Amino acid sequence: MNIGCDTMELSVLQENLAKGLSIVSKAVDSRPNLPVLGNVLLEADDARLRLSATNLEMSITCWIGAKVSQPGSITLPAKTLSDLVANLSPERVDLTLDTTSQTMRIRCGATKSNIRGIDADEFPSVPTGGQNDVIVPGTVLKEMIAQTVFAAAKDEARPILTGVYILFEGDVLTMAAADGYRLAVRTAKIDSNFAEPFSMVVPARNLAEVGRIISDEDDEVGITLPGGRNTVMFHLRNVDVSSQLLEGKYPDFSAIIPRQYRTQTVMYTSDLLRACQRAEIFARDNANSGRIFVKPPKAPGEPGEVVVLGRSIERGDNEGMLDAAVEGEELDIAFNIRYLIDVLRVINEERVVFQSNGKTEPGVIRPENRDDFIHVIMPMSVNS
Amino acid sequence: MNIGCDTMELSVLQENLAKGLSIVSKAVDSRPNLPVLGNVLLEADDARLRLSATNLEMSITCWIGAKVSQPGSITLPAKTLSDLVANLSPERVDLTLDTTSQTMRIRCGATKSNIRGIDADEFPSVPTGGQNDVIVPGTVLKEMIAQTVFAAAKDEARPILTGVYILFEGDVLTMAAADGYRLAVRTAKIDSNFAEPFSMVVPARNLAEVGRIISDEDDEVGITLPGGRNTVMFHLRNVDVSSQLLEGKYPDFSAIIPRQYRTQTVMYTSDLLRACQRAEIFARDNANSGRIFVKPPKAPGEPGEVVVLGRSIERGDNEGMLDAAVEGEELDIAFNIRYLIDVLRVINEERVVFQSNGKTEPGVIRPENRDDFIHVIMPMSVNS
Repeated sequence: MNIGCDTMELSVLQENLAKGLSIVSKAVDSRPNLPVLGNVLLEADDARLRLSATNLEMSITCWIGAKVSQPGSITLPAKTLSDLVANLSPERVDLTLDTTSQTMRIRCGATKSNIRGIDADEFPSVPTGGQNDVIVPGTVLKEMIAQTVFAAAKDEARPILTGVYILFEGDVLTMAAADGYRLAVRTAKIDSNFAEPFSMVVPARNLAEVGRIISDEDDEVGITLPGGRNTVMFHLRNVDVSSQLLEGKYPDFSAIIPRQYRTQTVMYTSDLLRACQRAEIFARDNANSGRIFVKPPKAPGEPGEVVVLGRSIERGDNEGMLDAAVEGEELDIAFNIRYLIDVLRVINEERVVFQSNGKTEPGVIRPENRDDFIHVIMPMSVNS
Repeated sequence: MNIGCDTMELSVLQENLAKGLSIVSKAVDSRPNLPVLGNVLLEADDARLRLSATNLEMSITCWIGAKVSQPGSITLPAKTLSDLVANLSPERVDLTLDTTSQTMRIRCGATKSNIRGIDADEFPSVPTGGQNDVIVPGTVLKEMIAQTVFAAAKDEARPILTGVYILFEGDVLTMAAADGYRLAVRTAKIDSNFAEPFSMVVPARNLAEVGRIISDEDDEVGITLPGGRNTVMFHLRNVDVSSQLLEGKYPDFSAIIPRQYRTQTVMYTSDLLRACQRAEIFARDNANSGRIFVKPPKAPGEPGEVVVLGRSIERGDNEGMLDAAVEGEELDIAFNIRYLIDVLRVINEERVVFQSNGKTEPGVIRPENRDDFIHVIMPMSVNS
């Protein structure tokens, strides 16, 4: 006889459970303030198991197919459950909750586990669902995130800069990130029409997580914009991610984007990236300062060239020469070479354009033949 | 005019240089006491470049093919050189030494580097060559090392136990390692005949490095036994490794190897390994103590079984049941489950034998149908 025990009971495939746990675990703090925040919430309804985790700033929910005999809910320690499931055979996993002892019994083949949980009532509420105010193709959103998040500030000196600014205006979606030394701005046309511009600032680390979770299966990602709440939600095929927003006014960055140039050069992205990686080995000792020399062609019809130089007073130096199509004036300028590496890694186009108005002016890096991505980097001072 | 500058000058292939540097770099301390110990010694002779590194306890030398125009030698910072070479194109690399400034100029394609070095005279002498007192097939030596080094002590409480005991006696090579809780002994027939037994104790971390370097190319590894010196040398095809020996008397371990058993069980190695990995997830909270129950068949012709149990008072438990061929008495015994995982990972045979004389006696783990590897583990106390 079953006295007041609603035993949650279901079966799932090990692969699905392992994959779901690996997705939601990213929202679990390694040292949570409350024990229950180190847990994953499991909720079984009709034919699905819902897994949720939250660090209060971000929450991730993932649904996986399940054969549910008895609906119910419990929270279980995230690391223990993930480690165990990752080590089970690729077979059916049967889960049965003993509600009296709050213990989940997990069977798979000849292995039986009991994991002690915490009541689901103690878990913070994790928002899911909501209308799709905007729909963005998954591949586009993934690239937009990759091309901006890295430029957000890592330190908390100006908290608003640790976020990515997202603007909906007409049928254009804009994402921008800046840390005071560099600025990344990416735009995309979307199938929407915002009569009134709408903007928000999403913590970069949460947005980066959304980018990592978007998979080839997610042809469309729905976004629920914050209404009265301070929360944005991203809806993937079987995953919902919600993130708190950063409060405050994002600085107006459009003024610092140069509108013309005195020197422009076009190079192969991979050549420039490799030259920067070699220069960086030496620039480490020198505040990462690497020097770029742009040499216009000596005569019409001849090629121009770009030289990238990294120098360590103690250890030595590296100088790489690249073929380049150069227009305009000769240039000798210094940049944080790691910032160049960061942006060149996400350019995703064969050739890259570098524009400058001189050694003290911000430089522009952008993919060739595309006007939807622009990266601005402040130069460092050159001791010549 | 070249005034008193013997400019070392040579060309090598980037792949070869990168591979050689990755091998010798393992002997470079990350925080060397002397700056020159953070460097790699480069010596060019007829048609080879010799690369050497040492932390004074171990040295590794690697020879790579080179086109040498001008022999010479220099030491260069290991990390800078490795990082640079790893980032060069897979082409010819030209090296030219400016002996006046002790600077190596490195050219590869359109990239030029200058790396400042330290005079080769300041580098400690690195022994190479010497006669092959013993020759052991590379695959055999690699397996012997893998099956013993992990059991050596990690802490320095008894320094001699941080080494691997190596004994040559007649035509048998024996390696043994122990840390007070477990013992691994591996033997092999070799093509030698030691009339007088000869033994030495090699630091386990150095021997592990030898094991890692041995590749499929090394069908034979020569060993130069320490003569007057306190150093053993391993000669691979293009690599020499020398290691200091540990001084002191290695404890006599043969007495603790059980010669019979009251319970024996044969299991699939991978089944037992996976059961231990699952149990370990919970045993972490319990000094890694996992429990093994051996149940003989209830009636003749029926199968026996083995149950592996890991338990955390706070988080829960896992119990895995395995089919097993059981002979002898029922058994309930506890082991450090990580020790079981360590040995099961290097068993390299489909089935494993576990023998015991009771819950307080050392247990034996060995591959089925092989008498050249034996592993002894002390049990933990069982609270029943």
